[in-house]
Amino acid sequence: MSEKDVKNMSVQSIKRLPYYLKFLKELEEKGNTYVPALVLAEYFDVYEVQVRKDLAAVSSQPGKPRVGFNVHTLINDIEHFLGYDRLKTAVLVGAGHLGSALLSYGEFEHYGLKIIAAFDSNPEVIGQKIHGRTVHAMEELEEYCDKHHAAIGIITTPADYAQQVCDQLVKAGVKGIWNFAHVHLTVPAGVLMQREDMAISLALLSNRLVQEYEDMDLSEVEE
Amino acid sequence: MSEKDVKNMSVQSIKRLPYYLKFLKELEEKGNTYVPALVLAEYFDVYEVQVRKDLAAVSSQPGKPRVGFNVHTLINDIEHFLGYDRLKTAVLVGAGHLGSALLSYGEFEHYGLKIIAAFDSNPEVIGQKIHGRTVHAMEELEEYCDKHHAAIGIITTPADYAQQVCDQLVKAGVKGIWNFAHVHLTVPAGVLMQREDMAISLALLSNRLVQEYEDMDLSEVEE
Repeated sequence: MSEKDVKNMSVQSIKRLPYYLKFLKELEEKGNTYVPALVLAEYFDVYEVQVRKDLAAVSSQPGKPRVGFNVHTLINDIEHFLGYDRLKTAVLVGAGHLGSALLSYGEFEHYGLKIIAAFDSNPEVIGQKIHGRTVHAMEELEEYCDKHHAAIGIITTPADYAQQVCDQLVKAGVKGIWNFAHVHLTVPAGVLMQREDMAISLALLSNRLVQEYEDMDLSEVEE
Repeated sequence: MSEKDVKNMSVQSIKRLPYYLKFLKELEEKGNTYVPALVLAEYFDVYEVQVRKDLAAVSSQPGKPRVGFNVHTLINDIEHFLGYDRLKTAVLVGAGHLGSALLSYGEFEHYGLKIIAAFDSNPEVIGQKIHGRTVHAMEELEEYCDKHHAAIGIITTPADYAQQVCDQLVKAGVKGIWNFAHVHLTVPAGVLMQREDMAISLALLSNRLVQEYEDMDLSEVEE
């Protein structure tokens, strides 16, 4: 597979991979060795040709006539494509409710993400342990990230502090930011930004709800 | 604005609206009455023509030459388009770490979302209050949703229980599901589904990280 192929894989296709992966692992647990593309297509309500295209982008196995793809090989290929088989150390900044919830989430290590420490500016939280990770003072961020080769910075601070924290993480050398704060953040070229913004999901859901169920309400105001 | 126009607005455009809204509110707080489209375009790194298209889809104000759009009117128009000005009651199922974090999040009411109660199957949690909301037993779900006209069901259970909970919420009459569990859920036609899946964001970030920074690693295995 050339680099060009990888880069050309659509975001929508990449988004399907974690779901395929989960389903394939369930199949493997149940003792299945092969899976036909059609089974994935029907389960996820996607065209079979799309499933084949998605899988071809991440796996070089051709798939056998009638029996389909080897489940175990597909699992390994998807995990490798998504980088789950390579450990990425992360630090989390903002040890509030959401930060604590993320620290408590045991699944991240299955994705190769290991949150090794938390940081906060609140003296009452600094020094405490949250689900096994120590909360450090912000002043220690740069040295800590440098020493532990932190690749990802997770931002769970209030929106007003997020850009400042982001700048500090970038200065500390992280290669990617995972931003949970509801604010537009700027990073220099070369640093990756992934946002996880509940306000955006909620906006989509809310907009679809009012369109579907409150059309009269809408039309009253919009003439 | 016709219904067709609304429906034709792209998901990408709708996703930008909450960011515009936040920025416009900051401008208003600082005393600005008008904003040129170019200012939004530069701040969000989007083409000006795209900003104009986004705004035209939600607001009928034409924008004045040189001064731009009335900030206050834009705020109202975007809030109305997104349904933030209409209250949507929600119940949350799964009062663990993530559920508690969502219950603690004060911003949702600004988006018209009011989480009125939580539900859980764990007897140790049932009857407790989390950030002012009582945790009820699952057996009470249907009657409670019916009585309080719950429009949205928020699922923060482990993945293995999510489909079962989803079915119960649908039976209880909710119109939209906001799913935080990492699993593909099926709903009948007419019920909206919005997923908030951290595993998906993490997959995107992880995949981009290993492509950008571990090319050698990738090429070693994939030839």
